[in-house]
Amino acid sequence: MSSSAAIVGASGYAGQEVLDRVLAHPELELAALGSDSLAGQAATALDPRLARSHAAPLPAFVPNDEALGAGADVVFLCLGHEEAAAVEPPGDAVVVDLSGAHRLADRALYAAWYGWEHPAPASLAAWEYGLPEVSPSRGRLIANPGCYATAILLALAPLRDAIDPAAVLVDAKSGVSGAGRVPRTSSHAGSVLENVTPYRVGTHQHAPELEQALGFPVCFAPHLLPVRRGLIATCFVRPLPGADVLELLTDAYAESAVVDVLPEGTAPELARVQGADAAELAVFEDAATDFAVVVCAIDNLGKGAAGQAVQNANLALGLDETAGLRLAGVPV
Amino acid sequence: MSSSAAIVGASGYAGQEVLDRVLAHPELELAALGSDSLAGQAATALDPRLARSHAAPLPAFVPNDEALGAGADVVFLCLGHEEAAAVEPPGDAVVVDLSGAHRLADRALYAAWYGWEHPAPASLAAWEYGLPEVSPSRGRLIANPGCYATAILLALAPLRDAIDPAAVLVDAKSGVSGAGRVPRTSSHAGSVLENVTPYRVGTHQHAPELEQALGFPVCFAPHLLPVRRGLIATCFVRPLPGADVLELLTDAYAESAVVDVLPEGTAPELARVQGADAAELAVFEDAATDFAVVVCAIDNLGKGAAGQAVQNANLALGLDETAGLRLAGVPV
Amino acid sequence: MSSSAAIVGASGYAGQEVLDRVLAHPELELAALGSDSLAGQAATALDPRLARSHAAPLPAFVPNDEALGAGADVVFLCLGHEEAAAVEPPGDAVVVDLSGAHRLADRALYAAWYGWEHPAPASLAAWEYGLPEVSPSRGRLIANPGCYATAILLALAPLRDAIDPAAVLVDAKSGVSGAGRVPRTSSHAGSVLENVTPYRVGTHQHAPELEQALGFPVCFAPHLLPVRRGLIATCFVRPLPGADVLELLTDAYAESAVVDVLPEGTAPELARVQGADAAELAVFEDAATDFAVVVCAIDNLGKGAAGQAVQNANLALGLDETAGLRLAGVPV
Amino acid sequence: MSSSAAIVGASGYAGQEVLDRVLAHPELELAALGSDSLAGQAATALDPRLARSHAAPLPAFVPNDEALGAGADVVFLCLGHEEAAAVEPPGDAVVVDLSGAHRLADRALYAAWYGWEHPAPASLAAWEYGLPEVSPSRGRLIANPGCYATAILLALAPLRDAIDPAAVLVDAKSGVSGAGRVPRTSSHAGSVLENVTPYRVGTHQHAPELEQALGFPVCFAPHLLPVRRGLIATCFVRPLPGADVLELLTDAYAESAVVDVLPEGTAPELARVQGADAAELAVFEDAATDFAVVVCAIDNLGKGAAGQAVQNANLALGLDETAGLRLAGVPV
Repeated sequence: MSSSAAIVGASGYAGQEVLDRVLAHPELELAALGSDSLAGQAATALDPRLARSHAAPLPAFVPNDEALGAGADVVFLCLGHEEAAAVEPPGDAVVVDLSGAHRLADRALYAAWYGWEHPAPASLAAWEYGLPEVSPSRGRLIANPGCYATAILLALAPLRDAIDPAAVLVDAKSGVSGAGRVPRTSSHAGSVLENVTPYRVGTHQHAPELEQALGFPVCFAPHLLPVRRGLIATCFVRPLPGADVLELLTDAYAESAVVDVLPEGTAPELARVQGADAAELAVFEDAATDFAVVVCAIDNLGKGAAGQAVQNANLALGLDETAGLRLAGVPV
Repeated sequence: MSSSAAIVGASGYAGQEVLDRVLAHPELELAALGSDSLAGQAATALDPRLARSHAAPLPAFVPNDEALGAGADVVFLCLGHEEAAAVEPPGDAVVVDLSGAHRLADRALYAAWYGWEHPAPASLAAWEYGLPEVSPSRGRLIANPGCYATAILLALAPLRDAIDPAAVLVDAKSGVSGAGRVPRTSSHAGSVLENVTPYRVGTHQHAPELEQALGFPVCFAPHLLPVRRGLIATCFVRPLPGADVLELLTDAYAESAVVDVLPEGTAPELARVQGADAAELAVFEDAATDFAVVVCAIDNLGKGAAGQAVQNANLALGLDETAGLRLAGVPV
Repeated sequence: MSSSAAIVGASGYAGQEVLDRVLAHPELELAALGSDSLAGQAATALDPRLARSHAAPLPAFVPNDEALGAGADVVFLCLGHEEAAAVEPPGDAVVVDLSGAHRLADRALYAAWYGWEHPAPASLAAWEYGLPEVSPSRGRLIANPGCYATAILLALAPLRDAIDPAAVLVDAKSGVSGAGRVPRTSSHAGSVLENVTPYRVGTHQHAPELEQALGFPVCFAPHLLPVRRGLIATCFVRPLPGADVLELLTDAYAESAVVDVLPEGTAPELARVQGADAAELAVFEDAATDFAVVVCAIDNLGKGAAGQAVQNANLALGLDETAGLRLAGVPV
Repeated sequence: MSSSAAIVGASGYAGQEVLDRVLAHPELELAALGSDSLAGQAATALDPRLARSHAAPLPAFVPNDEALGAGADVVFLCLGHEEAAAVEPPGDAVVVDLSGAHRLADRALYAAWYGWEHPAPASLAAWEYGLPEVSPSRGRLIANPGCYATAILLALAPLRDAIDPAAVLVDAKSGVSGAGRVPRTSSHAGSVLENVTPYRVGTHQHAPELEQALGFPVCFAPHLLPVRRGLIATCFVRPLPGADVLELLTDAYAESAVVDVLPEGTAPELARVQGADAAELAVFEDAATDFAVVVCAIDNLGKGAAGQAVQNANLALGLDETAGLRLAGVPV
């Protein structure tokens, strides 16, 4: 007995990735495909491959409001944060919001980090931040974590009490799909190819998610990479005396099918998580200082967005946590 | 009245870049082009463009020993560190060694970081570490800094006394030419394209150069980028109370034609330093912690190798410091 | 009741891709994993992801001879052509040879195009060239077509009798994995990134496969692309009067789950076939001449190698033709 | 005694490249820098490197009309074709139009290939198509050839009378800067990275330039590459009996400092012409058919745009043809 799923905002990168997973999911059935810009067009309008991978006809795109009201058991909101904040969650559906609209409990943080007055502050308390390995949500309104926050929290959350909270520094690098499908100068291939550039250093809107989850602030420097997808976070931490970082991480993820703590000597690689809903973690000791370096690689569109959204939906619907997920990517 | 230049090990990436600059140099004349593997072949063997950019015939490749003994006023050593350590510096020539063989004053560091017993420890004292903006050499035997060390020291040296020495963390990313021209699995395009991976975290051989120059150790995490050339170092520092990082850097490089401290709001970009012998620096304050982030971008083959070698040679020969250098790259 | 599969030469790109498909195959069970260089190591030695995607322990690498003699129902030979030619096909197994060793019926062609005297000319008659959509093999010894030949024959075979055979020109472009995993100067990322170069124009060893299959020669110009995987062939043909190229292709692949003839106005894209075992085809009329352009895109490691090998094995074993194949790749 | 130069439309890729060359030119002085969108801003607004490479202050951006009316000896029009067609060429200045607005002598071709009614058909006769090596212009109004047309005509023009005009086929591949700096879906890095796609096959607006120059039509298939800059054209031709293609090309460019006919066995490479105003040509015989393959590589922004514009200006102003050009790029 399948559950039904609606995708609202299905024409962006994240929406198409959720679609891909819903179609491969053994327990979900696609009920509605929403996109205001593509309404009326076939599901294959953006991606002709759907015609070859799915024999049965797919529902055409409908306006987002219609998809939202289609009575699905689970709704994936793949909208910008301003649009997502304006959505009224339907009936008793599970709703997974992939935007930032419901990630921060304190409304003032939106003004400070998004430059945006959150229009429905009362609703913030109704949503839970759902990072399954760290803080699984228990309700039906789930704020899916940011891609950077996912990678960084997977690396740092198990270390919360074992490191100096006054010196946590993160350098993270993301593929260009992290910035969405809308063409901008910053995502123009002429700006991206053979280039790397830091952006929003110290001011990125995923930083307050980190402080909210960890209890202390992190100095966070994001960079744009000349790759399509994938995100790697390099985290510098100062372990407290006696703390064994590798052991803490290994223990934290011993039961996880999603997070791999790599054997010593193996480094995470972007290429090994591209197209996958998994994470790779490794720990490096520093020979010269008392810092350790924890590196986490994910696919920003997989574990960093659509894969985690489906994982969250699975938990909320009582399904197998990894149903519909891609645990491996493509061999390299 | 030109000076004559010999290039020893001219077939690698760095050697070809030095050649390019020597040929464009108004005061240098190419005396000898050494390469054991290409000896006897025309100068254009590796790069047919030399035929179109240089009307006059160039000297053919000769064995490295012959190039070394050609009586040039300046010798550029573009060899691996083991080969470079075995070279006897000729007569009273200026010698710029682009390898690591003479960068560390303490022989024990070679055993610890290179896994290599330095064969001529006595000679280490004869060489000076020449980073023109930070520690210009005064003698004729000049150890050209490592590419990573160059970018990081340009960012950190002026801050030496203004930051907490116990928490200096550097995440650096380099294009694949940094690893040399010899084919390896790690430099195979199938391993590099659409990939990013950390390597030698906490154990990279450029780290002891940093400690030697700064007086305190740095936690250093290098990464390989899917780009041909360019290097960007993101440095996390904790300024002491009252220290103004941007002002310190601006003052340090106010007279420099090579190092650009960018205006606030402009970030260094790899693309803007590729093909150039200059460096871009910027400072970012962090909203949430007491750290600041200093980013430095260079071309690993330019300011990180050949450009700096020519700059060092210019200083030693009493020429204009930037003669023969490319201060801008290609528009982007 | 599963069939058992052995992979001989499992450490190269093609071998790893076959492994990936065998593990995902509903009817195949991995019997042996051969690699002389990795013998004794765990299956995860090259790719740690296998540990997370496959709960059950995988067989460790064994020497190739042992894998060959393991009594598997189907053997995938993923060796170089010289090694493959020396293999004695075991018992009554289905054997799919991914190398070029058995693709050409005429031994003299090996001397001419491979610069190699085929050591076992008698055996050439025992093997069949297996391109499922064009010339499905009927026996148990199957020569898997070359990656370029696959894309080009999918484009041209249905047009054989409808075009001028004296003017068939093909420009093809391949990602770097087409050249194998062994590091060479030509596959060094420093040579590949931001570069495109033609190679073996008019002399590439896949050209005689084309003539053998089509009955007329093709002028073939291959190029190396700065991408990891994917191959696109642009074929110029002069249709005979009255021939409808699009109709011929549409009819030829009407029943195929693997080959997509795209709707008019949609062009094949490398990105849409990467990681997939499918092909995309499109036809373009030329406004100014009497030529038409047929473009075919495949993944060189998918439909161009491992995917086709599994497809061939499926047919020979009487399984569903697309079992274990990836018909879609990763959304873009 | 320098000439003065104005750049109209200086904020696009081509305009910035012209600026770069004008600043490096020994005989040109920058008189005015036009950009409607950047008017009032400093010359360094788009590219902070200008501050380090040019000690003297540069003129700020002014509106295009003002730049046009600045009385410069040479005006570089770096506008879209519709804007360029509306420009009234000032006084007796040399004007080099980098757009397509004045390349085609026959107004009807604009309707057919640009889908655009040329507004000033009378003016078309006043402009000359200026490809210096093939058809140098003699007047002061010069239509700079398209990037694709440049590469293809350099390959084919010397062969005009030596090949079968009924079978000339060209597959060309360009970096993404060829499509301009304005962000579009097709130039979004997420669409370009790890991708290659044909576009406007048989309908590209550079095709009629070819027919106009050669006297016969060419079947032309352009492709978009995942590289920032560079263009490579692979041309299939059927030499007439007795024609020696290599000799014809070698003779045609024997005196050229810009066009390199490579020695046999050396293939053109994108990487070797990036950042350069030169072209590389090579000829390949085909073993199996009576076709030959001529390959030409240029930088689409160099010889394909700004480099050629300056070369045209040099000729019109009576200066050294290659003054201000970059004949070599960056070593690879």
